[in-house]
Amino acid sequence: MPAVFAVILAGGSGERFWPLSSKDRPKQFLNLIGERTMLQQTVDRLRGFVEPADVYVVTGRGYGNLVKEQVPEIPEANVIEEPCGRDTAAAAGLAAVYLARRDPQGAMIVLPADHYIADTARFRWILEIAVDTARSGEWLVTLGITPTRPETGYGYIQRGEMLRTVGSIAVYRALRFTEKPDQLKARRFLASGKYFWNSGMFIWRVNVILALFAEYLPELAAGLKRIAASLGTEREAAVIESVYPALPRISVDYGVMEQAKNVVVLPADFGWDDVGTWPAWARYGGNQDGQGNVIEGSGVLVESSGCVVRASKHVVGALGIRDIVIVEEDGRLLVCAKERAQEIKRLVAALKEAGYDDAV
Amino acid sequence: MPAVFAVILAGGSGERFWPLSSKDRPKQFLNLIGERTMLQQTVDRLRGFVEPADVYVVTGRGYGNLVKEQVPEIPEANVIEEPCGRDTAAAAGLAAVYLARRDPQGAMIVLPADHYIADTARFRWILEIAVDTARSGEWLVTLGITPTRPETGYGYIQRGEMLRTVGSIAVYRALRFTEKPDQLKARRFLASGKYFWNSGMFIWRVNVILALFAEYLPELAAGLKRIAASLGTEREAAVIESVYPALPRISVDYGVMEQAKNVVVLPADFGWDDVGTWPAWARYGGNQDGQGNVIEGSGVLVESSGCVVRASKHVVGALGIRDIVIVEEDGRLLVCAKERAQEIKRLVAALKEAGYDDAV
Repeated sequence: MPAVFAVILAGGSGERFWPLSSKDRPKQFLNLIGERTMLQQTVDRLRGFVEPADVYVVTGRGYGNLVKEQVPEIPEANVIEEPCGRDTAAAAGLAAVYLARRDPQGAMIVLPADHYIADTARFRWILEIAVDTARSGEWLVTLGITPTRPETGYGYIQRGEMLRTVGSIAVYRALRFTEKPDQLKARRFLASGKYFWNSGMFIWRVNVILALFAEYLPELAAGLKRIAASLGTEREAAVIESVYPALPRISVDYGVMEQAKNVVVLPADFGWDDVGTWPAWARYGGNQDGQGNVIEGSGVLVESSGCVVRASKHVVGALGIRDIVIVEEDGRLLVCAKERAQEIKRLVAALKEAGYDDAV
Repeated sequence: MPAVFAVILAGGSGERFWPLSSKDRPKQFLNLIGERTMLQQTVDRLRGFVEPADVYVVTGRGYGNLVKEQVPEIPEANVIEEPCGRDTAAAAGLAAVYLARRDPQGAMIVLPADHYIADTARFRWILEIAVDTARSGEWLVTLGITPTRPETGYGYIQRGEMLRTVGSIAVYRALRFTEKPDQLKARRFLASGKYFWNSGMFIWRVNVILALFAEYLPELAAGLKRIAASLGTEREAAVIESVYPALPRISVDYGVMEQAKNVVVLPADFGWDDVGTWPAWARYGGNQDGQGNVIEGSGVLVESSGCVVRASKHVVGALGIRDIVIVEEDGRLLVCAKERAQEIKRLVAALKEAGYDDAV
């Protein structure tokens, strides 16, 4: 039986969770929801399905130790530091090169490190079908989320014919990928009932994805080949160091999935959220106060509504405010209009520019 | 020449400056504007006019040591602790009893401990005229502030005939006191040009005010008489402890000034503010940022306007907010709609009720 590998992409900088996130601790390393960090929960979710020895984590330069500390059950050799960020095609490709040495026939599950999944059992079941579908090498599998709002920040996948069903799960041919549509298109997609959100979770066979890199991203494939040739030699680190930064910066969605012919999409109804902003966090974290506020930590809100408060040490008192996000963490304090929470990166940039490098 | 005494009323709890103010350190003991505290500035302002030996401070139970610490130049015997708050008639009366032992013919200047005055030289000059006017015993003098807005939170004094001028300063008879008018009345007062705000600063002769207490507030006068009889004896503390809490709770404005016939008002154009709220503080403290925000401490505000930020230790980052007050101090954090800043007492009450006694 060929191996089943999981590759967790943990390269994000997650500035939208300032002041909790920082360059020292991006989102995936934070315990935003529950006790365990996003990365730990991503690994935990695979328990019993993919052995820790078969789980790989690709992360940014300097974050390897944080990964090893947070998920010590994963072998150190499986923690791969990118010399620099080169988007998901390169990150998945780098991991595929390592996996190919172990089992080119193996299935490879690619998972973002910072998503929330409500129903782990359902997630596991859908992953099993996905692996089963990908095993033959005929299909690239994506997990599609049923949209609940005309979100313009996500990619969409249009489904085509139903190829088969496994239990209650239908496997559809993926007709078309559309990156971040405008509002009008997003509404149309939502109304049609034929589109999924692209979850960024993929399942394919190791040698299949490498072959597709060769077909659609030959420059990337050539670089990966040089890295592959160096693996296990004393040149390995030096080769990665020199080759990786020159790889094309492209997502695996754009670079492969949108081009490839044999893509299927599985409706992934396991309660998914990419928890991209503080208001998204408030759907899962904190406590409701009965006035429409969500509070974690010590906070008293008088005649205030729609606010999100997360206080680590301070006692927060609020009066007469609406739809404001307040987060206090380790000497840093955010106060932000809820509707602007997706722009916190701009605030982080402004803080840097103002010289508050230690605060970001 | 009879003495000139100053009595500084430092009994306020100043909850409207939470989280900077607290039960351990009410507003008058804070350095809200500049390096020196409000109380220290009030004492400093008298330098060269009233000797420290002639300055008395009436404060709440438990705050005597804070007074002694902040204004060590004032003799310890001049620091009077009230067993409990009984409003300004009782506080001024208690002080008058001490002053009467030293010089019943002396002039007594009553000053709140927590007001801001821009022009100290002008303040001094007006005080001199006020003392000169009060010396004969014929007049009670009030300092009236020329209104700049239809404020409904202050008392107003209607001026009558001009009695005399001293240099550029006119001395008017005070016709009528009106406590906190409604919006309509306040607009009328402002438009008429014949009303002043009651600054809460009074100048009168010691034996004159005591005689007026006897006339208008006989119950208070009787209590003060019992205290007067005990001064300098071993019963002093015990008598104050038993008599003071039973004194009527009334302001000197209501209790005496509104009744008395010989009241004059001096236009006090020395740049006055009672600094009653955080937005009022922002007129004097902090730095303007060019977007209409006032910031003290470390703060970066992106696409935000009309905000007031005072951070003691935290780095504050704000995005997309308007007219919000943010104050961070010693483990406590306030986020408040600017227009609700005068209601912060309610927030403090809610914090107490929620069990955050240490935070208020």
